[in-house]
Amino acid sequence: MLDSPVPGSVMAREIAAQPEGLARILADGLGPIRAAAAEIRARDPRFVLFTGRGTSDNAGLYARYLTEVLLGLPAGLTSMSTTTAYRARQRLADCLVVTVSQSGGSPDLIASARQAREDGAFTLAVTNNADSVLAQESDLHLDVLAGPELALPATKTYTAELLTLFLLVDHIRGGTGEAALGLPAAARAILERRAEIEAPAERYRFADRLVATARGYGYPTACEAALKIMETSYIGAQAFSGADLMHGPLAIVDPGWPVLAVAPEGAGGRALRPVLDRLRERGADLFLVGAAEPVAEYGRGFVLPGGVAEEVSPILEILPLQLLAREIALGRGCDPDAPRALAKVTETR
Amino acid sequence: MLDSPVPGSVMAREIAAQPEGLARILADGLGPIRAAAAEIRARDPRFVLFTGRGTSDNAGLYARYLTEVLLGLPAGLTSMSTTTAYRARQRLADCLVVTVSQSGGSPDLIASARQAREDGAFTLAVTNNADSVLAQESDLHLDVLAGPELALPATKTYTAELLTLFLLVDHIRGGTGEAALGLPAAARAILERRAEIEAPAERYRFADRLVATARGYGYPTACEAALKIMETSYIGAQAFSGADLMHGPLAIVDPGWPVLAVAPEGAGGRALRPVLDRLRERGADLFLVGAAEPVAEYGRGFVLPGGVAEEVSPILEILPLQLLAREIALGRGCDPDAPRALAKVTETR
Repeated sequence: MLDSPVPGSVMAREIAAQPEGLARILADGLGPIRAAAAEIRARDPRFVLFTGRGTSDNAGLYARYLTEVLLGLPAGLTSMSTTTAYRARQRLADCLVVTVSQSGGSPDLIASARQAREDGAFTLAVTNNADSVLAQESDLHLDVLAGPELALPATKTYTAELLTLFLLVDHIRGGTGEAALGLPAAARAILERRAEIEAPAERYRFADRLVATARGYGYPTACEAALKIMETSYIGAQAFSGADLMHGPLAIVDPGWPVLAVAPEGAGGRALRPVLDRLRERGADLFLVGAAEPVAEYGRGFVLPGGVAEEVSPILEILPLQLLAREIALGRGCDPDAPRALAKVTETR
Repeated sequence: MLDSPVPGSVMAREIAAQPEGLARILADGLGPIRAAAAEIRARDPRFVLFTGRGTSDNAGLYARYLTEVLLGLPAGLTSMSTTTAYRARQRLADCLVVTVSQSGGSPDLIASARQAREDGAFTLAVTNNADSVLAQESDLHLDVLAGPELALPATKTYTAELLTLFLLVDHIRGGTGEAALGLPAAARAILERRAEIEAPAERYRFADRLVATARGYGYPTACEAALKIMETSYIGAQAFSGADLMHGPLAIVDPGWPVLAVAPEGAGGRALRPVLDRLRERGADLFLVGAAEPVAEYGRGFVLPGGVAEEVSPILEILPLQLLAREIALGRGCDPDAPRALAKVTETR
């Protein structure tokens, strides 16, 4: 851990490094991604499992949507306890298992990936550490090239994982990653507007709970935003897919509940509209990160740049929410660089 | 909806009906379950997807663990928006898609199950309504035989779904459901101890947030407990697998945070111990539903009957937590039979 004489300065630096990190993947990362995609295409997997914890689990959730929608393959998220607690063996032939991890060092991830390979899966590790055990023990490895991450809450490795996974899936389906070309510039433009986040962050000074919601591709953004806010500000932040919210948890929302909603251009944002209407009826305090039109309609929010394909929008949506998490934490007197109770490499088994 | 002159009386009646409901499945449900298992074995699926919302999604999560651990097959939970928002087609040959729904009537579930069948999946509906569109449009249907559910928060249909799914999986692997034979009596014994829940429920009178946690088979119990508490008492209840809790959300827990933990006999309960130790260090206010030994060690809780196989333990674990949710709601002046903002059949699309 770096000394952090100014609280939040390490996280700020890592948030700011993201446009450059995205550009690096588009320059230096593409070759290995293209090669991995060719190997995966040759194997023609029938099913894809994603394994990760925390932020990397949210990246896996994003990649699950990509796999289902863009590749038309069934996909799931691994429950590691199946291997680590129950010692189950699985029939994983024709299965691609993708393990996503910043450090590549968590014992349960390594055990789970190792077992998947023994059980017949083709395994890919996506990490920020090419020297990690996870990278070395997988059939394929992709380095997300984000450089050492020093703040405890992951920021730059999240967007690097998302872009790497998008490019991989797009190349598997025969694309060239074109939808991602504008992302570094768009990310830079968003981060230059950080002043727009200061006033909204103030409003959460005394919040002790919060709901984040979205549908489809935006749902991992809601999960990651909730996680960032929990980690840095200790607010009880809960993420729900908009549809799941309607099936019960909606009851908790009353006037005064802060709700963050992710409503980008595209089908996911459109599918969220009835949920936003119900939340407004319930008197929720809405803040949107999304397209201009829903932000204007529901009153407050951060407008995302237009013309971005929905499947890469999550790589941008999280940026104002990372800024928001950091600002809320600072406003509450917390140091977002070093949240209480956490270590950078979590040794779950 | 029945008239409910005494708040919570409908939910109480449905909670109390569970031992009889479980016995009914073991008597009348077994024939159809055995037949469905034989058909599924003959198809030899390579992968299983579970689809559901709310309580039925938690039942699907339980069945995902069963599938992975007992059948050794990779499994996942469906993101319905893949079909309903993105209109994706998937390659689902060799895939079993199990849709779990109390009513069998939610439009997105029907659309998702219909599309899965068109995309080549073998489809099974598990519902409490044999006349539902979902039942009729699936290759196979299993009725959970719980009788009309009138309270808004699902209770008896949850345990009926769990038992039906356990018996199905056990028969697919060549078992006879023996581990489930003692469940009706054990459930009755637990519900007779409802007075033990009254004092703990009092303690949550002014709680506005809460964490529920477990590992492995107990994790769906934690999710369902959190959902019941959200629906009936409007507390911001968040469920985390114990391992996920350690990867970030642990930071939110400080002295005074109520934590409900599910720690039954078996590997999942054992894997939770390091998490419980960390929670204790953080000063969390712990209440366990579990085996005698961890309840004694961590101080407070509801002791489950011993000698129950871990894979069927979730069918019992949820009972004291249903009672707890109902008691908390009544103590806060809410009517758990008819939570605000909810309808029994939620029409998400």
